[in-house]
Amino acid sequence: MSQGPLAGVRVVDLTRVLAGPFSTMLLADLGAEVIKVETPAGDQIRGQGGMRNGFSWYFAGFNRNKRSVKLNMRTDEGMAILKDLIRTADVLVENFRPTVLDTMGLTEEVLKALKPDLIVCSISGYGQTGPYKDRPSFDFIAQAMSGFMSSTGYPDREPLRAGLPISDLIAGLYGALAVSASLRRREVTGEGERIDVALVDSILSFASYFAANYLATGTAMERTGNDHPVVAPYGVFRAKDGDVAIAPSNDQIYGRLVDALGLREALSGPDFATNAARMKNRPRVNAIIDAKIGEDTRDHWIDRLNAAGVPCGRVLTYPEVFEDPQILAREMVCEVEHPGRGPIRMVGFPMKLSEAPCEMRNPAPELGADTTPVLEALGYDAERIAALRDGGVI
Amino acid sequence: MSQGPLAGVRVVDLTRVLAGPFSTMLLADLGAEVIKVETPAGDQIRGQGGMRNGFSWYFAGFNRNKRSVKLNMRTDEGMAILKDLIRTADVLVENFRPTVLDTMGLTEEVLKALKPDLIVCSISGYGQTGPYKDRPSFDFIAQAMSGFMSSTGYPDREPLRAGLPISDLIAGLYGALAVSASLRRREVTGEGERIDVALVDSILSFASYFAANYLATGTAMERTGNDHPVVAPYGVFRAKDGDVAIAPSNDQIYGRLVDALGLREALSGPDFATNAARMKNRPRVNAIIDAKIGEDTRDHWIDRLNAAGVPCGRVLTYPEVFEDPQILAREMVCEVEHPGRGPIRMVGFPMKLSEAPCEMRNPAPELGADTTPVLEALGYDAERIAALRDGGVI
Repeated sequence: MSQGPLAGVRVVDLTRVLAGPFSTMLLADLGAEVIKVETPAGDQIRGQGGMRNGFSWYFAGFNRNKRSVKLNMRTDEGMAILKDLIRTADVLVENFRPTVLDTMGLTEEVLKALKPDLIVCSISGYGQTGPYKDRPSFDFIAQAMSGFMSSTGYPDREPLRAGLPISDLIAGLYGALAVSASLRRREVTGEGERIDVALVDSILSFASYFAANYLATGTAMERTGNDHPVVAPYGVFRAKDGDVAIAPSNDQIYGRLVDALGLREALSGPDFATNAARMKNRPRVNAIIDAKIGEDTRDHWIDRLNAAGVPCGRVLTYPEVFEDPQILAREMVCEVEHPGRGPIRMVGFPMKLSEAPCEMRNPAPELGADTTPVLEALGYDAERIAALRDGGVI
Repeated sequence: MSQGPLAGVRVVDLTRVLAGPFSTMLLADLGAEVIKVETPAGDQIRGQGGMRNGFSWYFAGFNRNKRSVKLNMRTDEGMAILKDLIRTADVLVENFRPTVLDTMGLTEEVLKALKPDLIVCSISGYGQTGPYKDRPSFDFIAQAMSGFMSSTGYPDREPLRAGLPISDLIAGLYGALAVSASLRRREVTGEGERIDVALVDSILSFASYFAANYLATGTAMERTGNDHPVVAPYGVFRAKDGDVAIAPSNDQIYGRLVDALGLREALSGPDFATNAARMKNRPRVNAIIDAKIGEDTRDHWIDRLNAAGVPCGRVLTYPEVFEDPQILAREMVCEVEHPGRGPIRMVGFPMKLSEAPCEMRNPAPELGADTTPVLEALGYDAERIAALRDGGVI
């Protein structure tokens, strides 16, 4: 058994694709026993993304540390097994559309009867309530409807999505957070509850200064590409061998920047003396800094600017990220041996806990790899398991 | 007292600006008592973002449900008070640079002596370890160094940041998740621990298919603007009165889309029959769909496509988001009465818990609003409190 902070917690995981599987992977990384219940066809992302040795590394990176039970939930026997499993669970996580759990017969009452202190976490596009709840959803749509896209991109081009499925992943994080907090409450009170997390709500919670500014003043901020909406200079500059991001967030750090670049003289005078003046003359300021940065390499400037206390860094591609000394020192790339599939590499654990650390206990499971031991532990004997297998239930 | 899942938990909060305050606000929203300890100048974001009635709504949206103690931690008496406070705490959260806590005298040994089962969560740019740990950091730099920017933007333009400070916020979420899981462990084992969360690690954990694809194949994916890297059509289309995002993620949903648009004939033939063919002919596919969408309004198409089961939605600005019926039904805009500052509006709670819900217990505190009652509860009498106030310690 794991020694993580959620050791001893059993999660029945009915999720597919991304938001839900990310949420349950976080719980698994934190030590919970996560039993992923899959249809006979398996989670569809088993067939998506970068493949190697016949296995999806995309699937692998979202399903490590879980067990897999294959179950035909469209049969009465399959549903009976699922109910037996829920009786042994502390948490149930699902990311179906809102009515599906009820249609399967897992109404609130049925779940309560099966396990009175069960925590049930539902992750969906729009949530379990409201006029859009039955609409089909998708990460990209949540990025559009939450205002996120209106904040990203250039002022003279269309609103732009993030290249990564951030709505799915933020919702997954909120699901795991709500479940963990609720598990703490369950230790204290003995009670379960229902949790409802929506993709749109989740990414809207990131609106930060765009939301505050609009709500306080009635005026919406414009998107500004890589420039900061109210600070200049700030952005991406071109060194001899690649891009450097520089973020001098206040006058003090701006002063350090111009000194470190040797531009105190070039950037003196009333046109550059205040942030307000620099905002007005941003193209000139940026051009002067860009020309200077272009005289040397990324590493030269990054060493010099960091030494001067100016936040900056290379703008890295993923091949560069996965070779970066800091990323390697933080063990943010990890490898797991997967029997028959070779070693599989994936992103590591962003939460570093000193006494009960996240651990790679096992690779993402093959479809149904744990069906037999899980059913045996539920008290099913070998004969019955064989019959269920012959009948296509498992 | 709150009835949330973290009710009864006391958090001493030494964080400033964004990642840390977001993390402790999540804990406060979940019911913890969060005591924000501020320098006499106060958290700098009290003076930033959209202001109204002399109060920053940006600060308000990241510090609701907290208490504020003003403390000069550069004095011995100030540090003595902080230590008294830590003795009563379950959790300490900080987002200083890695060496600062030690410099203040709050070494691991001192903290352990003050409160043996304390959970200490540190949030920083690069983490507490590794070659870059002492560098100054900033959300934008983490977006650059984590590969995120390389995934976002157009293929013919520079890598692009998200308009929102997503590295800060994702790290804040991981901090709250790790603390909540660790609090559950503390209920079971009675033990505290140290938690180390970095902005760069946190946003790197979102790399999903970009990471999987590169690690599995050795080839990095390109950024593709609003287009999907491997699915066509997919993106933003222009209706008469605004933009519509459409995400038909597979052939089945593509079929629904062309039928709902009445384009079955226009998009027939070998050039459009498969996703691979459509990827090759993406400009033509997009132009045909764009022309059709342009014939009517956003709402027309969104009703029709949703009814057909095609994920789609308006691309909303924040003024539109905060009037959207779903957002309002989900109570994702909420208002709190702030004495002397009028009602303040902010984004609501993305975690909906049925039995122990997040609640708006109180607005973000004025600087030092709770200094006196918190010190009284620590056993400081009125005379001593007055002397500390006269001495500029509180």
